[in-house]
Amino acid sequence: LGARLTIALDAMGGDHAPEIVVAGAAIAQRRFPDVHFLMFGDERRIGRLIDAEAGLRAATTVRHTELAVSADDRPSVALRQGRNTSMQLSINAVRDGDAAGVVSAGNTGALMAMSKVSIKTLPGIDRPAIAAFFPTLVGESVMLDLGANVECDVHNLVQFAMLGAAFARSVLGLERPTVGLVNVGAEEAKGREPVKQAAAILREGSPYFGFHGFVEGNDIANGTVDVFVVDGFTGNITLKSIEGTVKLYTEYLRQTFKSSLTTRLAFLLARRAFKKMRARLDPRRYNGATFLGLNGIVVKSHGGTDAFGFANAIGVAVDMTANGFNDILTRELASFAAEQPTKARAAVS
Amino acid sequence: LGARLTIALDAMGGDHAPEIVVAGAAIAQRRFPDVHFLMFGDERRIGRLIDAEAGLRAATTVRHTELAVSADDRPSVALRQGRNTSMQLSINAVRDGDAAGVVSAGNTGALMAMSKVSIKTLPGIDRPAIAAFFPTLVGESVMLDLGANVECDVHNLVQFAMLGAAFARSVLGLERPTVGLVNVGAEEAKGREPVKQAAAILREGSPYFGFHGFVEGNDIANGTVDVFVVDGFTGNITLKSIEGTVKLYTEYLRQTFKSSLTTRLAFLLARRAFKKMRARLDPRRYNGATFLGLNGIVVKSHGGTDAFGFANAIGVAVDMTANGFNDILTRELASFAAEQPTKARAAVS
Repeated sequence: LGARLTIALDAMGGDHAPEIVVAGAAIAQRRFPDVHFLMFGDERRIGRLIDAEAGLRAATTVRHTELAVSADDRPSVALRQGRNTSMQLSINAVRDGDAAGVVSAGNTGALMAMSKVSIKTLPGIDRPAIAAFFPTLVGESVMLDLGANVECDVHNLVQFAMLGAAFARSVLGLERPTVGLVNVGAEEAKGREPVKQAAAILREGSPYFGFHGFVEGNDIANGTVDVFVVDGFTGNITLKSIEGTVKLYTEYLRQTFKSSLTTRLAFLLARRAFKKMRARLDPRRYNGATFLGLNGIVVKSHGGTDAFGFANAIGVAVDMTANGFNDILTRELASFAAEQPTKARAAVS
Repeated sequence: LGARLTIALDAMGGDHAPEIVVAGAAIAQRRFPDVHFLMFGDERRIGRLIDAEAGLRAATTVRHTELAVSADDRPSVALRQGRNTSMQLSINAVRDGDAAGVVSAGNTGALMAMSKVSIKTLPGIDRPAIAAFFPTLVGESVMLDLGANVECDVHNLVQFAMLGAAFARSVLGLERPTVGLVNVGAEEAKGREPVKQAAAILREGSPYFGFHGFVEGNDIANGTVDVFVVDGFTGNITLKSIEGTVKLYTEYLRQTFKSSLTTRLAFLLARRAFKKMRARLDPRRYNGATFLGLNGIVVKSHGGTDAFGFANAIGVAVDMTANGFNDILTRELASFAAEQPTKARAAVS
């Protein structure tokens, strides 16, 4: 990591802000000693919290603002009236080159709207997508879009494939990730029109990823591909369904272990192993959804996460910055547009 | 159950047909002694299997055909060329009043296409939907559409709400089920246009179900409502994602119990309790997706299921028939059209 790596933090965003933001920064600071934080928020509240964390003060610059975007604000309202909020100011820090990336646990819609207006999308990208990685049977995969775009056309889906592949390379360290389009069947004739059209373009091939073809819902947990491309409506509902199912199973497990003296004893015996298993599925480990396709790095933390989860979201921003994610992506987008036949060129223009 | 309850079975449909179809019929026959089976398929193969099951021969009539729809047949091809297949003939038995319902583990697309043409949709229903029930934190819920319609307009979604509510009443025995529209957020302004328009109509109320409003992906496992209404693209991917996640978690669990001698001992101690837990999540228990909105009862079994699973699919058809599902539904559709204001009337016409 370069010594000049600065991450802007929206200190007032999220259900438990600013406490978990500062505590998360402290955890991240121990993990990445070269990172500097630019924290936006209420100085009186943040200052005391920073001083309570050993070593954090030296790694942090605080920029005071009393205004914050609230969880219920409509994105359009936040955009118009939120000029001096901690969220907008921390995004502007990326735009102005004062920070390499920004992390916020605040209102997702507002963060996306402000980012689009302030940082703008990359050349060749019509709309940014929300991406995150998650555990599979064989490791970890990336899925996008997770809710930024409820309607997606063929161009959006093709662009998401490129964005997701670059993200998988950067954060998961994969040389040439595999990409699948989520659909209702593996056969060419099945599914929605934009999905079928996107497949036709992606089948032409790319030097940056391998196109697997269509994948189905069960392929997600199987980890059939490294990158799952889907529209934001389906992606959002799928992701939350998976989270809900993990909670359901965990609750069944809890009830099972509590059902008799024998099962309680069994739990005591297996406790350490179960702790490890739970850690593999811990949503905090996978905290940090990225807004891909912007002219800068924007990471959204889950609003209800704790310090450990927020530190992981900071980790995603640090990884992307350290690996020069946006430079690599910009180069790939340009070369994709130049190399591919007419259809593909149409898709990214 | 009336003595005249006859269920048609496509004996040649599914990965392990006709063996599991006949064995499943034998299990169902012990559960529902008044049911009669009309089995369509290769008499030489089925005959021996039936004779091997005590009591099944007396409850079964076999109609011979050597033709069958294969798993890879395109629905349009099956429809044109499959006139004398076991699938088409078993559907025709419902059309002709020889059977109250039909169960098949064969090609889903072909079964839907043939059912639509042969049995036709109910008055007020534009397109049938695929529905199934599944386990939640608080009991069981129904979800539809699970893949019959990759694109759904406002009319389809409103009709699915009525179909799903009638199904929940009939199979889950709920007096006045609650219905939710699956969306990317609970706020009125969020989501796709058809979903928002359907919500506006459903908010006007119905005597047959309570409209909860929007629900999200995590509400599915929570069982927030009795009936989850969603387009067939999202519903199919969501359902398969949930199934994949259950398999993933089960595999993690298996690895955890195998990780040391102590955890193996723990598993032995808790084995009985775990068997019970696995049974709660057993996909065979929830086998039997129903095609709702047709002028007759059509149940699709999972193609890869075993006899126990196929017997449960027969159970769904028996429940629906015994409760007079289609008569009740037809009455409700007519009254919905008559009672609701213009918007709603437009939705079902």
